[in-house]
Amino acid sequence: MKQAEIRSDIAWATPKKVVVHGLDLCEEIVGKIDFGQMAFLQLFARLPDERELRMFNAMMVILVEHGITPSSLATRMTYAGAPEAVQAAVAAGLLGLGSVFVGSLDNAARLLQASLPDPRNVPDIDALASSIVDDYRARKEILPGIGHPFHKPIDPRAPALFKVAQETGYDGPYIRLMTAIGQAAEEKLKRALPVNVTGAMAAVASEMGIPWQICRGLAVAARSVGLVGHILEEMRQPIATALYLRTEHEATAHLIPREHREEA
Amino acid sequence: MKQAEIRSDIAWATPKKVVVHGLDLCEEIVGKIDFGQMAFLQLFARLPDERELRMFNAMMVILVEHGITPSSLATRMTYAGAPEAVQAAVAAGLLGLGSVFVGSLDNAARLLQASLPDPRNVPDIDALASSIVDDYRARKEILPGIGHPFHKPIDPRAPALFKVAQETGYDGPYIRLMTAIGQAAEEKLKRALPVNVTGAMAAVASEMGIPWQICRGLAVAARSVGLVGHILEEMRQPIATALYLRTEHEATAHLIPREHREEA
Amino acid sequence: MKQAEIRSDIAWATPKKVVVHGLDLCEEIVGKIDFGQMAFLQLFARLPDERELRMFNAMMVILVEHGITPSSLATRMTYAGAPEAVQAAVAAGLLGLGSVFVGSLDNAARLLQASLPDPRNVPDIDALASSIVDDYRARKEILPGIGHPFHKPIDPRAPALFKVAQETGYDGPYIRLMTAIGQAAEEKLKRALPVNVTGAMAAVASEMGIPWQICRGLAVAARSVGLVGHILEEMRQPIATALYLRTEHEATAHLIPREHREEA
Amino acid sequence: MKQAEIRSDIAWATPKKVVVHGLDLCEEIVGKIDFGQMAFLQLFARLPDERELRMFNAMMVILVEHGITPSSLATRMTYAGAPEAVQAAVAAGLLGLGSVFVGSLDNAARLLQASLPDPRNVPDIDALASSIVDDYRARKEILPGIGHPFHKPIDPRAPALFKVAQETGYDGPYIRLMTAIGQAAEEKLKRALPVNVTGAMAAVASEMGIPWQICRGLAVAARSVGLVGHILEEMRQPIATALYLRTEHEATAHLIPREHREEA
Repeated sequence: MKQAEIRSDIAWATPKKVVVHGLDLCEEIVGKIDFGQMAFLQLFARLPDERELRMFNAMMVILVEHGITPSSLATRMTYAGAPEAVQAAVAAGLLGLGSVFVGSLDNAARLLQASLPDPRNVPDIDALASSIVDDYRARKEILPGIGHPFHKPIDPRAPALFKVAQETGYDGPYIRLMTAIGQAAEEKLKRALPVNVTGAMAAVASEMGIPWQICRGLAVAARSVGLVGHILEEMRQPIATALYLRTEHEATAHLIPREHREEA
Repeated sequence: MKQAEIRSDIAWATPKKVVVHGLDLCEEIVGKIDFGQMAFLQLFARLPDERELRMFNAMMVILVEHGITPSSLATRMTYAGAPEAVQAAVAAGLLGLGSVFVGSLDNAARLLQASLPDPRNVPDIDALASSIVDDYRARKEILPGIGHPFHKPIDPRAPALFKVAQETGYDGPYIRLMTAIGQAAEEKLKRALPVNVTGAMAAVASEMGIPWQICRGLAVAARSVGLVGHILEEMRQPIATALYLRTEHEATAHLIPREHREEA
Repeated sequence: MKQAEIRSDIAWATPKKVVVHGLDLCEEIVGKIDFGQMAFLQLFARLPDERELRMFNAMMVILVEHGITPSSLATRMTYAGAPEAVQAAVAAGLLGLGSVFVGSLDNAARLLQASLPDPRNVPDIDALASSIVDDYRARKEILPGIGHPFHKPIDPRAPALFKVAQETGYDGPYIRLMTAIGQAAEEKLKRALPVNVTGAMAAVASEMGIPWQICRGLAVAARSVGLVGHILEEMRQPIATALYLRTEHEATAHLIPREHREEA
Repeated sequence: MKQAEIRSDIAWATPKKVVVHGLDLCEEIVGKIDFGQMAFLQLFARLPDERELRMFNAMMVILVEHGITPSSLATRMTYAGAPEAVQAAVAAGLLGLGSVFVGSLDNAARLLQASLPDPRNVPDIDALASSIVDDYRARKEILPGIGHPFHKPIDPRAPALFKVAQETGYDGPYIRLMTAIGQAAEEKLKRALPVNVTGAMAAVASEMGIPWQICRGLAVAARSVGLVGHILEEMRQPIATALYLRTEHEATAHLIPREHREEA
């Protein structure tokens, strides 16, 4: 069998030296760059400049903590059963970051990047937005990145992110397109559909040249930090056991025959 | 059934506002603090001062990327089967961060924190180290945090981390104890057993007041960033399929009877 | 906030009694039904009759073990790092059962069930198959369930499964449609494209009334048994550490500068 | 670098043939053996005889479904976020099968197998049980396999399993030792501590020659079937979203300042 090449360009080590993306871990990374720079380095194989770093940090911090969600509850439930395996509790919480909660980020970024493959060659943004909205309506699909069931009338995180984009010079065609999609949808559907946090993230990621395929990865990496915070709180102030016991009781009480209820 | 209290103090949200650990996400976090500060905030429920942040960043960056490991291979294998579920590929890689690869970090931090429960009340460090080494030898257990099978004679990451600790004023009794344990072990076992990266991390975490129970959580959070980098490389330059095909061939060739080999 | 109903009909328990899908665990399940019957009971909320059980068992046994795959390697890599967490090693192996390896089963079952929504009302199968093949060719999509890169010219597992279907009376319209799709594809694409194991499983599952959405679940449940077998072998005769060490060496050797090679 | 041997003895395949543990998949497995036999084959590399199979089936069926638990809730939470990744939902549920819920099975089996390394050479069981109980009390550790917080005074699953053991000739020294440990503990601690399901499983597994290290694996494999049943119910009759929304509300209401409550 011919051997296919197996090659990785990320890191190498000798007994005396560890090098990651061309930087000496002990001489050029530890004590020299911060966690945000390191995350950027790991993802883009180079260090960010100052404005890239500020924009990247803004995206990462917004993704860390989303409160009591299916994801943080899965982490807490797993910790309750396997407190010795903190890695498994974090993993369990990450596993639900799929099509429902984080997938719209990929979808919005894919829509933007497919609609505007070359950001230096920008067509009439309003006409493009209008045709995108018509296209989704014709296919009866939900437009990603606009509207929010809870954060109404506007998702405050979108303007917060766009403000940083403006300050760092990332207010380019993808942000204009995302905004125009929201406006076109509002006009055609006659209801408030401003850009939400997902749409804002997707637009900013596209401005930074981040391929849509890895947007979910950014969310997953940032959220893993958040989930460790939930484990720390579950250690001090647990809720998983109380929650499962009362859920078990409520969910199955209707099944227990009258003659067995007293003992239950 | 009496309802146990279910309470979380991490975050709250209204339609117009999101607050994490007391800070307004849109006004005080996005664009204002960086990823390292946000990670610290999520774990300690307060922002770090400058020297805390520098020390914390140094620990986090050292944990991000460890090359081709069982963990990064599990991530790449999972991505090969489920490229649509990036979250699952990251989770798969985290799951192996258990007793063999990251557990020694917990163990070393537990040893230090149990041996020195009050860092303001420090006994004779050399005598303490000597008794710890004797105790492990008597129980025939491996001392965590010293020696390294590959990084010999010294693990260069340990002095790199200790240098930052010195610069930031974290060179306290836990670092002295960890170093003394290595020296006592070298004397008693007659071979080079300097503090390794795990021992250095454990000592620094203890200096920062990080409970040993959550040290693995720091490693898991940082590594999830690293694993996203491996997914990005696997997208561009895959190795998982070639690796499993050749492994399957090598591992099972001895089972195939002669008369069936030609067709295989 | 109005409380939505939280209800589960699977099981209930009192201190003296456990009931699963209406059967008393201690009186009617343990020692009375076997693992295949229990799996059927859990999935369909009733016990199978004899022919259902034989067909169901045939599907389950075929899914248990697939050799050295990305999935079993992810399990072994995870076990190497966290041998104390067998559950995490199994979970890691399951995570790669996504669109590439098991997804074609869902896709084939969805295709069959969407094309033939009412199996009592069967149109001209050959015409239907021909239009399905034309439709996929027009959309340049890959037809699920036919052809195999390794098991050529035919996948021997498909006729084995269809033989049991015939013996148990499950040789109905979905199997005829799947077979006809293979034949139509062979005619139109001028190459051998017989039904593969995935197509056969999808056809049989459709005959049994199993919704396409849960076909992947059957595969996942069966494979978890298989992965425990790989963990057992890894305990006795490990390969993960040797495999990652040689992969690390091969993958990164090109990065190490000449002057650092000697020490590596 | 010298190449370590990479070898697996589980399965091999050629284009025309698949062989698992020496049996031809298409000729000797599909349609010939059932799911319980296949699970036994995968774990023990041979087919069971009739009494082994009945005992093994009894253990597996008891492990499949345990109602609304942290594990099934983690599965349902994950499905709510990633319904396209059924494998991830099952994996999330498995991850919590750790020291709290399933670990006592390993611990009880380890205790039995360490105390009675050779079942053909049986000492005075009552004296052995008494010394085991004394030993655990002296170390202030919890004895695994006896007592139950909910199933009191006796766990009905233990006698159900022991009844099958008796019928199949597996009522040997490990079951006697487990029972004697419960009795000795009751006498010394002056409260009801009969053998629970975990202790019964551990004793039966030991009778069957199953090493304690893999007992958790049996539980994990069986439970994955159970979790697929929970996903099926969650598809039809979801509870995850309602549960997380009300938990989020209850857990964080105390944090929201009075002036922000109206809009929440």
